[in-house]
Amino acid sequence: MPLVRISMRRGKPAGYATAVGEAVHRAMVETIGIPERDHFQIITEHTPQELVYDPGYLGVARSDSVIFIQIFLSTGRTTEQKQALYARIAALLGEKPGVRREDVLIVLTPNERADWSFGNGEAQYVIMPKERWK
Amino acid sequence: MPLVRISMRRGKPAGYATAVGEAVHRAMVETIGIPERDHFQIITEHTPQELVYDPGYLGVARSDSVIFIQIFLSTGRTTEQKQALYARIAALLGEKPGVRREDVLIVLTPNERADWSFGNGEAQYVIMPKERWK
Amino acid sequence: MPLVRISMRRGKPAGYATAVGEAVHRAMVETIGIPERDHFQIITEHTPQELVYDPGYLGVARSDSVIFIQIFLSTGRTTEQKQALYARIAALLGEKPGVRREDVLIVLTPNERADWSFGNGEAQYVIMPKERWK
Repeated sequence: MPLVRISMRRGKPAGYATAVGEAVHRAMVETIGIPERDHFQIITEHTPQELVYDPGYLGVARSDSVIFIQIFLSTGRTTEQKQALYARIAALLGEKPGVRREDVLIVLTPNERADWSFGNGEAQYVIMPKERWK
Repeated sequence: MPLVRISMRRGKPAGYATAVGEAVHRAMVETIGIPERDHFQIITEHTPQELVYDPGYLGVARSDSVIFIQIFLSTGRTTEQKQALYARIAALLGEKPGVRREDVLIVLTPNERADWSFGNGEAQYVIMPKERWK
Repeated sequence: MPLVRISMRRGKPAGYATAVGEAVHRAMVETIGIPERDHFQIITEHTPQELVYDPGYLGVARSDSVIFIQIFLSTGRTTEQKQALYARIAALLGEKPGVRREDVLIVLTPNERADWSFGNGEAQYVIMPKERWK
């Protein structure tokens, strides 16, 4: 159910953006119970003028390799689950493709289960039992 | 009031993206009472690496012609209204430009009426009576 | 804490988009207490087909220089604060780079404090006292 928008600077090697997307997805599967196949992302690369960040807000030393990860998902996660998600995204991105922890910015934006249609003009999370969400 | 972000793969013929936007708008007018002139959209086309989708989640057989439709709009629609909206978007996209129903992914993200300014630095939905929303 | 997505037509002079971003940030600092260094934006430019707007909805005469400003931020602002924000964004954009007030479209989308991680895999607004948010 999440739709994930990932925004980063241009100029990384081939495969870098895809590796970022996979790490973010893996972290969601591991920490907040997102189904393995519930994988929908928009990954865009930007010029320096397009992607604006502060290099020190809250004492975090960000670089030009900063990545904005915006996750649209249904409500219902606890603060502890969100914290586990953030930690796991940063850890997995650090392993591959090797993103500095300081460069991982994450924003969640909530909605409701009825706010999703995965095709066929249907609201699957309304009409399908949860055990079939895969 | 909706702001609609539509994301699809590159490579469709001229006019395709515009037809998609018009079908989505028409469906909102017909099913959830969006004013005819309340038409604001950002339509972007992407490389395969940029637009990531699962080809079978929830049993829906998606193709590379998948379209992500993200609608930001005020709260207040019922589940039934949302279901009517999804069905109508899929039906109209099937008519023109001819999108497979399986390839229509829709996400709603809610906010409040006071969260909109349509110009002039004013919150029109706060200060204007509803009969003038056109 | 806000993440700001700014979308406008292509073809403006160098520095224009950056000036737009700075005006929006300045207005948030002045009217709703956003910290000076809490500055994170994605600014994109679009073809006419990509950026769709109605030129007269709600009686506002928009032009091709229309700018969509989408602000993702935590809940908690009053309607009065939002109105002050809209007015200030329009005023500052009018000063520099010289945007017509009619062309300033603003949308707020809310979330919660726990929905933000500013780096290091941490939820800073959960674990840091507010006086250190700078």
